[in-house]
Amino acid sequence: MVRYKAIIAYDGTNFHGFQKQPNGRTVQEELEKTLKKMANGQTIPVFGSGRTDSGVHAVGQVIHFDYPQERPLERMRFALDTQSPEDIAVKEVELVPEDFHARYMVHEKTYQFRVDIGKPRSPFRRHYASYYPYPLDLKKIERALPDLLGTHDFTSFCAAGSSIEDKTRTIYEATMQVNDAGDELLFTFRGNGFLYKMIRILVGTLLKIGNGRIPEDAIPEIIAKKDRNLAGPTAHPEGLYLYEVKYE
Amino acid sequence: MVRYKAIIAYDGTNFHGFQKQPNGRTVQEELEKTLKKMANGQTIPVFGSGRTDSGVHAVGQVIHFDYPQERPLERMRFALDTQSPEDIAVKEVELVPEDFHARYMVHEKTYQFRVDIGKPRSPFRRHYASYYPYPLDLKKIERALPDLLGTHDFTSFCAAGSSIEDKTRTIYEATMQVNDAGDELLFTFRGNGFLYKMIRILVGTLLKIGNGRIPEDAIPEIIAKKDRNLAGPTAHPEGLYLYEVKYE
Repeated sequence: MVRYKAIIAYDGTNFHGFQKQPNGRTVQEELEKTLKKMANGQTIPVFGSGRTDSGVHAVGQVIHFDYPQERPLERMRFALDTQSPEDIAVKEVELVPEDFHARYMVHEKTYQFRVDIGKPRSPFRRHYASYYPYPLDLKKIERALPDLLGTHDFTSFCAAGSSIEDKTRTIYEATMQVNDAGDELLFTFRGNGFLYKMIRILVGTLLKIGNGRIPEDAIPEIIAKKDRNLAGPTAHPEGLYLYEVKYE
Repeated sequence: MVRYKAIIAYDGTNFHGFQKQPNGRTVQEELEKTLKKMANGQTIPVFGSGRTDSGVHAVGQVIHFDYPQERPLERMRFALDTQSPEDIAVKEVELVPEDFHARYMVHEKTYQFRVDIGKPRSPFRRHYASYYPYPLDLKKIERALPDLLGTHDFTSFCAAGSSIEDKTRTIYEATMQVNDAGDELLFTFRGNGFLYKMIRILVGTLLKIGNGRIPEDAIPEIIAKKDRNLAGPTAHPEGLYLYEVKYE
């Protein structure tokens, strides 16, 4: 057996998330189906860097799997890519040591979040950006973003019911760009890890700040209080992209 | 009755084209359903600047319709937009003289065509750009594009079976841009009108020129011979956008 790491992209629109589940089509399941075909019926488990929720996209999700024999990398990539459904793309494949693990060795993750602020909502972005039709003062969002940087207990930005105990994470980068047409925001968050629905709650909070319904200097206090009710709503999944996963 | 002109956008993926037909969902039918709701059950016919085929998109399709009473423009736009399905957007509404006609008074049309030339094909563009995985010499395409300009009989670039007799059209603009990432081509064609499937055959021919299978100086001869068989294949519909319609 040889271990392969692959970087994949997927359009999350028609998936019930990454992780296999009893009901609903998932990315993991489709990749395992592809590998089973390629390996003449042998079952090959796929491990991802983490889950993504229903409707969430990936530009750079990372997986690993063990394959019965070594194959030339480009041939492996091409077979995986073309034999998978068209809403999954396999961008890169490499051989990794047998102790590599796509989930446990994650060093850094980057997510992006797109918000359509045009009027009317673009029909071409309806599955690829969340829509925000209310007035926004982007300066307020820019003022608030640096308050997210650093190491904090992000309990206030974690969906209720999460079983993870330690909610301390470090955010290295939190930025917002506006596209040339002025009708789309692109948020980028880079950190050592993110809690369940954390990016979507961060974006929901930042939009409320831009809309003036949460003060622009409120983030340190929201973090300090460790109370999910103080943060904004969870932004819709269709704007979220797992952009990059880095390993040590 | 007052006549309204509207500029609409639609994602053509889930439509069997613009024009009403016995089987399959169409843009015209959906807009007429919306207007019927708005006008308390009254039937209001919608006229478009022209058809678009199944899977073809519009950024700036123009329609007109007669409405029983005058309404404030933004309220009209908002109602039409929000009461139509989410793959149709209503961008602008204006009042026009009662002799305005969206189809018969067209002065100029602009189409765009997107080609994904990345490897692998982007899952996010699979419905929004045609895919071309073969080698391309873009210089050859740039060399060929100006040969399309001017007034010509475009019989060679018209789908067989078209009932239109006069196949003379004037092309004012024919350009190609490459995006920053270098993985997508954007063709723009502006002219006084285009024949059935003409843009898709033009793009299919230009890609064959870029791939070296049609000489880069062949376009004048292809035009002169008036033979559809000399041009390239019809490019797939998902890359095509009706971009703008201008009136006198």
